[in-house]
Amino acid sequence: MSLPAEFHDIAERVNNWGRWGTDDEIGTLNLITDEVVRGAAAEVRTGRRIPLALPLQQDGVQTGMIPGRVNPLHVMVQINQELFGPGTVACSDDAVTMGLQAATHWDGLPHVSHSGKLYNGRPAATVTAHDGARYSGIDKARHIVSRGVLLDVARALGTDRLPGGHAVTPEDLDAAEELAGTRVRAGDIVLVRTGQMRVYLAGDKHGYGYPSPGLSIRTPEWFHARDVAAVANDTLTFEIFPPETENLWLPVHALHLVEMGMPQGQNWQLEELSTACGEVGRHTFLLSAMPEPFVGATGTPVAPVAVL
Amino acid sequence: MSLPAEFHDIAERVNNWGRWGTDDEIGTLNLITDEVVRGAAAEVRTGRRIPLALPLQQDGVQTGMIPGRVNPLHVMVQINQELFGPGTVACSDDAVTMGLQAATHWDGLPHVSHSGKLYNGRPAATVTAHDGARYSGIDKARHIVSRGVLLDVARALGTDRLPGGHAVTPEDLDAAEELAGTRVRAGDIVLVRTGQMRVYLAGDKHGYGYPSPGLSIRTPEWFHARDVAAVANDTLTFEIFPPETENLWLPVHALHLVEMGMPQGQNWQLEELSTACGEVGRHTFLLSAMPEPFVGATGTPVAPVAVL
Amino acid sequence: MSLPAEFHDIAERVNNWGRWGTDDEIGTLNLITDEVVRGAAAEVRTGRRIPLALPLQQDGVQTGMIPGRVNPLHVMVQINQELFGPGTVACSDDAVTMGLQAATHWDGLPHVSHSGKLYNGRPAATVTAHDGARYSGIDKARHIVSRGVLLDVARALGTDRLPGGHAVTPEDLDAAEELAGTRVRAGDIVLVRTGQMRVYLAGDKHGYGYPSPGLSIRTPEWFHARDVAAVANDTLTFEIFPPETENLWLPVHALHLVEMGMPQGQNWQLEELSTACGEVGRHTFLLSAMPEPFVGATGTPVAPVAVL
Amino acid sequence: MSLPAEFHDIAERVNNWGRWGTDDEIGTLNLITDEVVRGAAAEVRTGRRIPLALPLQQDGVQTGMIPGRVNPLHVMVQINQELFGPGTVACSDDAVTMGLQAATHWDGLPHVSHSGKLYNGRPAATVTAHDGARYSGIDKARHIVSRGVLLDVARALGTDRLPGGHAVTPEDLDAAEELAGTRVRAGDIVLVRTGQMRVYLAGDKHGYGYPSPGLSIRTPEWFHARDVAAVANDTLTFEIFPPETENLWLPVHALHLVEMGMPQGQNWQLEELSTACGEVGRHTFLLSAMPEPFVGATGTPVAPVAVL
Repeated sequence: MSLPAEFHDIAERVNNWGRWGTDDEIGTLNLITDEVVRGAAAEVRTGRRIPLALPLQQDGVQTGMIPGRVNPLHVMVQINQELFGPGTVACSDDAVTMGLQAATHWDGLPHVSHSGKLYNGRPAATVTAHDGARYSGIDKARHIVSRGVLLDVARALGTDRLPGGHAVTPEDLDAAEELAGTRVRAGDIVLVRTGQMRVYLAGDKHGYGYPSPGLSIRTPEWFHARDVAAVANDTLTFEIFPPETENLWLPVHALHLVEMGMPQGQNWQLEELSTACGEVGRHTFLLSAMPEPFVGATGTPVAPVAVL
Repeated sequence: MSLPAEFHDIAERVNNWGRWGTDDEIGTLNLITDEVVRGAAAEVRTGRRIPLALPLQQDGVQTGMIPGRVNPLHVMVQINQELFGPGTVACSDDAVTMGLQAATHWDGLPHVSHSGKLYNGRPAATVTAHDGARYSGIDKARHIVSRGVLLDVARALGTDRLPGGHAVTPEDLDAAEELAGTRVRAGDIVLVRTGQMRVYLAGDKHGYGYPSPGLSIRTPEWFHARDVAAVANDTLTFEIFPPETENLWLPVHALHLVEMGMPQGQNWQLEELSTACGEVGRHTFLLSAMPEPFVGATGTPVAPVAVL
Repeated sequence: MSLPAEFHDIAERVNNWGRWGTDDEIGTLNLITDEVVRGAAAEVRTGRRIPLALPLQQDGVQTGMIPGRVNPLHVMVQINQELFGPGTVACSDDAVTMGLQAATHWDGLPHVSHSGKLYNGRPAATVTAHDGARYSGIDKARHIVSRGVLLDVARALGTDRLPGGHAVTPEDLDAAEELAGTRVRAGDIVLVRTGQMRVYLAGDKHGYGYPSPGLSIRTPEWFHARDVAAVANDTLTFEIFPPETENLWLPVHALHLVEMGMPQGQNWQLEELSTACGEVGRHTFLLSAMPEPFVGATGTPVAPVAVL
Repeated sequence: MSLPAEFHDIAERVNNWGRWGTDDEIGTLNLITDEVVRGAAAEVRTGRRIPLALPLQQDGVQTGMIPGRVNPLHVMVQINQELFGPGTVACSDDAVTMGLQAATHWDGLPHVSHSGKLYNGRPAATVTAHDGARYSGIDKARHIVSRGVLLDVARALGTDRLPGGHAVTPEDLDAAEELAGTRVRAGDIVLVRTGQMRVYLAGDKHGYGYPSPGLSIRTPEWFHARDVAAVANDTLTFEIFPPETENLWLPVHALHLVEMGMPQGQNWQLEELSTACGEVGRHTFLLSAMPEPFVGATGTPVAPVAVL
C-alpha cells in the first residue's frame, strides 16, 4: 500500500520544505513575526480570558484505543509532610504519568512521517527511543503566541455540532470566516470548532472518538493560501472518522506536519470560547498556547488561553 | 517545635482569608481583573516573546534531594508506527513521568500547610492520595495572564547573581522597582531575578540548590501592600538556604500560599528576559503563565512567556 | 456506618495480634518454618513448573473502576542504541508504570485498615504518601516459598467456574480439600480456584470483575483453624460481588490482612495449574511466590510458580 | 568501528543459533529440564531461604549515568480510603514507575544486539517502541527455577571483594567451583560473587558502578562448555569497567544474550547467601528467579530466592 496520487498532488502544492532554510525546525511558526504579535495584542478589548484545555485527569478522553496514549495518572508523592520536623511548615507534592498527546495538546512536526520523511525532508529514522525527535522537537518551538481566530463551523452551519463523518470543507471555512467577520491572515492560529467536544462533555467517550467530523483533505490548501501558523480543533484525532477517502488515513496530519511544517492541536475545548465570541460579536483574540518544552518530544500537553 | 512569634505576627498582617469569600479557592488571582489584563496587553510594544521555562528533560534541576520530585522521564511509546498498515502515514507518540514541581512550575495554594491549615482556613487533611487537593487545586486557577514586572534584583545590586544565602529584602525590591521604572500595582505578577539560575546553567546542580539566595520573610508584606497576584523567582526552592532565621523553614511558602493565597513560581529562567528588558529599557510586559489543569494538583509545570 | 457485629465476632476469633510479638510485621508468614519448606521441596515429583501470573500488558484486567490501579504501561527507553559508538554492541532498555495491585499480586498487610487500625494494632495513619507503609511493607516479607495446595472449588463442585455472586463456603473448601486428597496444614499457601479467570481469558473484562464469586466471610476461620500462611484466588478483588452481606464491603480483606496478618493474592491464573493437577492426580506442590521488595509498599506484583 | 576478530572467534565457538530450532525464543533456558528441576529440589536440605534482590526504592543503585534507567518511584495512589463510605474497610494502593533494568534484574535475550542481529539470527529491528521485543520477550521465558550454584570468586581468591577492573577468568571460576565442592552441570544457574555489591551497601553508588570487576570475555566459553542455563552476578553492568579490551564494550552481554541465548542477571545481592553457604558448607540450592511477565520486555526486575 502507498499513499494515493490525490495525496501527493496536494502535498506538492502545500509543501514548505526549504522555505525557511534547510536547517529550519519550526515551519509555519516562522510566520508569527513580532508584527503579528503586536497585532494580536491589539485584539484584546475586554480583558476576558477563556482557557481552552480539558481538565487533566484519569477520567480523560482516551479510551485505550490508541496504544500508549494513557490518560493522566496524577499522584501525591507527599501529603502535608513536615520535612523539617514536627510543627514545621508541611509540604504536598505531586507527580504524573501521561501520554503527551492524551489530552488537549499540540502535535509537533515529527509526530508523523510518511514515505520515510519528516518535515523539511529529514529521515523518519531521526526519531529514536534514546533521543526522541532529533529535529523539530516540541522544545524547538519555544513560544506559540499569536492572533487567534475562531472559525466556528458548527455555528456557521447552524448546528450545535457537525455530524460524525462530516468533512469540513474549504467552503465551510469560508462560511465560518464570514461569520467571524475577519479575514484569516499570515501568522494567525486558527481554531476550527466542530462541536464534537459536546459528545465528550455529555459523557460519551467512545462516541467522541468515532464517528467524528474533521477537516477535509482539501483544507490544508486553504490554510496554506492564507499562511496560517497553526490550526487546532475540538476532536480526538483532528481527522474525519471514518475517513473521507477509503483507506487514506491521517492525510491531514501528513500534509500539515510533514509537508507544511504546521503544528496542529487536538482536543481543544472551544465551547466556552464559542459562547464568549458570540456574546462579544468578535472571533479574534490574543492566543497564548505555549508548548511545555519537553526535549525531543513530538507533542505536548498545552493549556491555551484566549484573551478577548 | 512550632512556628515562632515572628512568623505569626507577619502572618496576621498579610492574611487574606475570607477577603474574597469563604468559598474562594484562588486567592490573589482574584486581583487579575479584566481591566488589569487590558493594561497588560497594552504593555506589548515590540511583539518580542521570551519563554521562561527550563527544558523538560531527564537531566533537569532535581538532584534527588526532595523525595518524589523526579526529573521528567520522556519516553517514546510509538516511533514511526504505521498504525493502519505498511506504507500508510506513520505516527510517533510520547509519554512522560515527572514531578509536577520538578522543573519550572507554579506552587498552587495547597502545596503547603501550617498549623493544620490551608489557604482560607481549610483543613490540611482535605489533601488526600485519592483526590489530591479538594480545595484550591491548580485546575481551579483556570488562567494566569496578567501584567508581568521583572524585578531584577541582581542587576539593581550591580551583580550577575546574588550570593548564596543572600536575603532579598523589601529594600532590594524597592531598588529593583526603581531600576524597572515602574510601580508594581494590583494584579501584577512579579518576577524576582536573583541570578541564581546561572549556577545551574553553568552545570552545577548541587550549587544551584544550596546555598541559595531567596526572598526574605519580610517581603510578603511588600507584595501584600501592592496587592500582587503572584510571584516567581529563579531559584530551586524560592527561599533562602541556609534559612534566614535558624530552624524557620519555608516561611515565605507558608505566608504566600497559606496566609495570602498567592501562587508562587520556582525555577523560572529569567536570564534571557533580563537581557531583553535591559535592551529595550522596559521591565513590564504581558505575561502568560497558564497552569496545566491537573485536577486536584498542588502545583503544575508551566511554560511562561513574556511578550514585550 | 460502622462494621456490623457479625464482622467483629469473627474478627475476635481469628485475631493474631501479639501472637508473634508486638513488633511483628509479617503475621502468618511466620508459620512458614524451615521444616515446612523442607516438606514443600519434598512435594516436587515431576519437576514440572507452572507459572501463575497473567501477562503484564496495557490490555490487562483493570477497567478503570478502581482509581489509580493502572494497567502496566511498558515502554522502551532505548532501542538498539549503540551507546559506545557506531558498530558497537547495541542496547535496548525498558521502563514501566503500573499499579502494584493491577495484575497478579499479593496484598500486603497494610493494604487495608479498619476502625483506624492495621495488623498488630498499629495506627492506620502510619501509612503516608512520603513513606508508604511504615510497618509491614511488602519488603518486610522477604520471601514467600512454601507448600502450595490447590483447592479447586470449581472442579470439586463439578463446574468450570462458579457463578457470579457465589460464596465459597467452608464446606466448599472441605470438598476441594477432599478432591485434593490432602489435609491443609500449618504454613501452607492455599490457592482457591473459582474458575472466574475464564471470564477474563474469554475476553470479558467487565464480566470478570462483576458479578464475581469469592470467599465467604466464614472462610477466614477455616484458614485460621489450619494456620494457613497465605491464600490466593483467581478473581479481581478476592471477594464476592455483589457482597454476601449487604453493605459489608471487603470483610475478608479486613479479616485476613488486619486481624490475621495473612497476605492474600488476587488475579492468579490457576487454569493451567488446575489441568496439570488433574493430570498428575496431586494438588500439592512447591510454591515460590516472591514479593518484589518495594520499600513501604502495601502490595506487589508477583510471578508465582508451582513446581509439581 | 566494528567488533574485533577476537570477539567473532569466541562468538563462533559459543553460538547456539538453531540449536533448539529456528523458532526458539528462550535459548539456554531449554536446558532446564524437568529432571534438572527434580535435582534442584533435592538440593533443599535445611529449608532456609535467602532472598537475593535489593530493596526497590528511589534511593537505588542507579545514578543517572544510564539514560532512562530510572530508580523506582513508588507512590501511594490511595491511603486508607474508605471507598464504600465512612466507617467501611479502608484501602491503600500503590503504583510505581521504574526502569526494568534499574535494580536486581534479568537481562532478556533481546536486551542487546550486535551487527544488526538478536539471538537466533533475528533482525534487531524486531524490537520496536510499539511492540517492544517481538521475539524472546521476557514473558516468553515463563519460568526460571533450577539448581543454583554460588561461585564465590571473592572468597575463593581470599578477599571480601575483587578490585575494580578485575577480570574474572575461567581459572577464577575453576577455583570457585572447587571451593563450592560441586561440578557445574547442564541447566544450572550460576551466581558469580565478586563482592562488588559491598561498595554499594557501604553507601558509595558511584564507586559501585566504576571501576568494577566483571566477567572476562573468556568466561562465556566456560559457561558454554558446562551448558549453564543462566548466569547472574553482583555488579551494576555485569561487565568489567574499565573494559578488559580497550574499546570493546559489553562483549559478554553480546556473547551471552545474542550468541548463546543465555539470560544474565545483574545487581544480585549475594552477600547474605555467601555467608549462609559458608555456614552450611554447601554452595548449591534450589533457585527460583521468576521473571515478571512483561509482554515484549527485554528485561525484568526479579526477586530471586535461594532455598538451601
